[in-house]
Amino acid sequence: MIARPDVFPGARAAASFNLFKQHSPLIHCLTNEVVQALTANVLLALGASPAMVVEPEEAAQFSRIANGLLVNIGTLTAARGQSMLAAIDAANQAGTPWVLDPVAVGGLHYRSEFAQRLLALRPAAIRGNASEILALGGVQGGGRGVDSTADSLTALTAARQLAQTSGAIVAVTGAVDYVTNGVADWAIPGGDILMTRVVGTGCSLSAVAAAFCALPGERLDHVATACRVMSLCGERASTQAQGPGSFTPAFLDALYQLNAEAL
Amino acid sequence: MIARPDVFPGARAAASFNLFKQHSPLIHCLTNEVVQALTANVLLALGASPAMVVEPEEAAQFSRIANGLLVNIGTLTAARGQSMLAAIDAANQAGTPWVLDPVAVGGLHYRSEFAQRLLALRPAAIRGNASEILALGGVQGGGRGVDSTADSLTALTAARQLAQTSGAIVAVTGAVDYVTNGVADWAIPGGDILMTRVVGTGCSLSAVAAAFCALPGERLDHVATACRVMSLCGERASTQAQGPGSFTPAFLDALYQLNAEAL
Amino acid sequence: MIARPDVFPGARAAASFNLFKQHSPLIHCLTNEVVQALTANVLLALGASPAMVVEPEEAAQFSRIANGLLVNIGTLTAARGQSMLAAIDAANQAGTPWVLDPVAVGGLHYRSEFAQRLLALRPAAIRGNASEILALGGVQGGGRGVDSTADSLTALTAARQLAQTSGAIVAVTGAVDYVTNGVADWAIPGGDILMTRVVGTGCSLSAVAAAFCALPGERLDHVATACRVMSLCGERASTQAQGPGSFTPAFLDALYQLNAEAL
Repeated sequence: MIARPDVFPGARAAASFNLFKQHSPLIHCLTNEVVQALTANVLLALGASPAMVVEPEEAAQFSRIANGLLVNIGTLTAARGQSMLAAIDAANQAGTPWVLDPVAVGGLHYRSEFAQRLLALRPAAIRGNASEILALGGVQGGGRGVDSTADSLTALTAARQLAQTSGAIVAVTGAVDYVTNGVADWAIPGGDILMTRVVGTGCSLSAVAAAFCALPGERLDHVATACRVMSLCGERASTQAQGPGSFTPAFLDALYQLNAEAL
Repeated sequence: MIARPDVFPGARAAASFNLFKQHSPLIHCLTNEVVQALTANVLLALGASPAMVVEPEEAAQFSRIANGLLVNIGTLTAARGQSMLAAIDAANQAGTPWVLDPVAVGGLHYRSEFAQRLLALRPAAIRGNASEILALGGVQGGGRGVDSTADSLTALTAARQLAQTSGAIVAVTGAVDYVTNGVADWAIPGGDILMTRVVGTGCSLSAVAAAFCALPGERLDHVATACRVMSLCGERASTQAQGPGSFTPAFLDALYQLNAEAL
Repeated sequence: MIARPDVFPGARAAASFNLFKQHSPLIHCLTNEVVQALTANVLLALGASPAMVVEPEEAAQFSRIANGLLVNIGTLTAARGQSMLAAIDAANQAGTPWVLDPVAVGGLHYRSEFAQRLLALRPAAIRGNASEILALGGVQGGGRGVDSTADSLTALTAARQLAQTSGAIVAVTGAVDYVTNGVADWAIPGGDILMTRVVGTGCSLSAVAAAFCALPGERLDHVATACRVMSLCGERASTQAQGPGSFTPAFLDALYQLNAEAL
């Protein structure tokens, strides 16, 4: 049994959020087919700039220009895998931080092998649910597609180890999110069950994490702030929503209206 | 002139819907590029789990795990066609039911030949508009892209024959939907003209049909229930909507709030 | 310093819009992965019919049937580039007008070379932001991904030259849109800053421009009307929206409700 981490303080989230608003990061998103529009709209609502550039040659060129890169393997194909590898290589050369979202890793062999290969390429952060983080860390999980059947606290030990071995900040998200650098960690409560009934809220969080990784300063705090921004706006949207349909417009509005004081 | 089928009784729909809620099927969706997010959100709103797994190797692996498979050829490419064939083959080996949505079949040679090939692979159900069902059944239709220029009742004879030759439940959807197993059939009224001004309502219905095909029991009733769930929620959403923009959130909310009593 | 063009008269927009409603054009959209659903929904809300047909063989076949073709290079890949070339070739043989949206052209070599190649294939219209039009016209711009860092009036001289050399109507869009045939031009004010916080409003405008290019008569007026339809509905939606989330449903509703009198 591990100790439950402290709740991430609002003052730290506010400081990180102010920095985000000053920088308006440009984020290169290599993400899955299903969530592209929501991912772009979440970044735009927060004042960041998304761009999806996918042919390997220009994906590599663009990762040098962008402030951050997201790699999400939800609808991995051999061709898109080549674009991801080209973009990551260029990002690493240019010092552009990149974030890995290992969607549904564990049960599916093809993506699991690819994710292990990516893990060696020094992601700045990794964001997944408990099943995904357990699987990526080599622990047998119980994922059923993209849904997690494990609790995020259960996965925190695996997350700490993964952070230590990979050098990445690791975020395990669920009813409560945990963010760790392998030594220190934060708990981020909030959100709403309705967020699990809308496709792409987790994938979008990974894009937001990539945008926060583009900021100077303490990356553990920045990734925790990405989680807090999404969980707070999720909570606010849920109070106004009659279901997952009205949740999404309310969520994007909440992201757009968010200011540091609210954090 | 053929007799108009009886209206599908609400009590049967309610029974099938209760079963659906108990099973929460996991549905593998190989669908077109345009409707992926709506398709996922419709399934999530109903309490099912969507997953899009597309590289042939893992598409095959995933179809064995999933409870149902959707194959929609709206943006068919040679590469995606290979994934579809791999997934169908695996689904058939595992006994996973799969549903064919033959988008815009008829006028376009490439997809028409592919759809005929799929037809031989024993889909559990086929869902199309009148033009598509006429074309798939070998009758010359008048489709203009994805829009149907034929009435769904006109296509019922073709649908019955198609059900007999293919062994699939066939749903012809339009202002009134007809569902047939080649011998018995049901009429499902409802819906709203606004549904034709939102992309993906028909494609999403095919995904919902795949989810209902995953249930044990009478498949004709289950596919008719899929149609009724969508037409009833479409009606409800239309009464609240000022146009196709506000329709979509209201529609997803209605799917989320739906219970057996309402059917 | 060039003279600011006259504002496009509402009476001309109304005439063009009435023609549009009579024709309900069928538009073949080869557009980027991120904006496909919004593009389809914008066309549907206006009463046009979208279709995305992507495999080269059937893309070519479909471009002969469609009333207009959109080519948007936002997520260009080698494979999709082949589909675009096949579709353009067929469209040109059939006399189907096609519109080029040169997303993020300039900084990225791969797409910039491809866009130059497309430019020689006689597009009926070109729609881009100032950076894109400057880059396509061979002027060094300052684009940062898909965002324009240049003012649309600055780009008007380049747009006129591009119209003259390409034979296309050129629309440079921004806070004010300018549409030119190289000799005459119109200014189209309106819109709202919120439109820049929703992905795909520009890309959707290009699709609407393709639909207006399908109409008989003065193409300069038709493309200006496409811009006006979008800017007016954007304005209307913004007055009802709390942010980019509630903007999108309101925008689609406004497009659906629009009539010639309002123009």
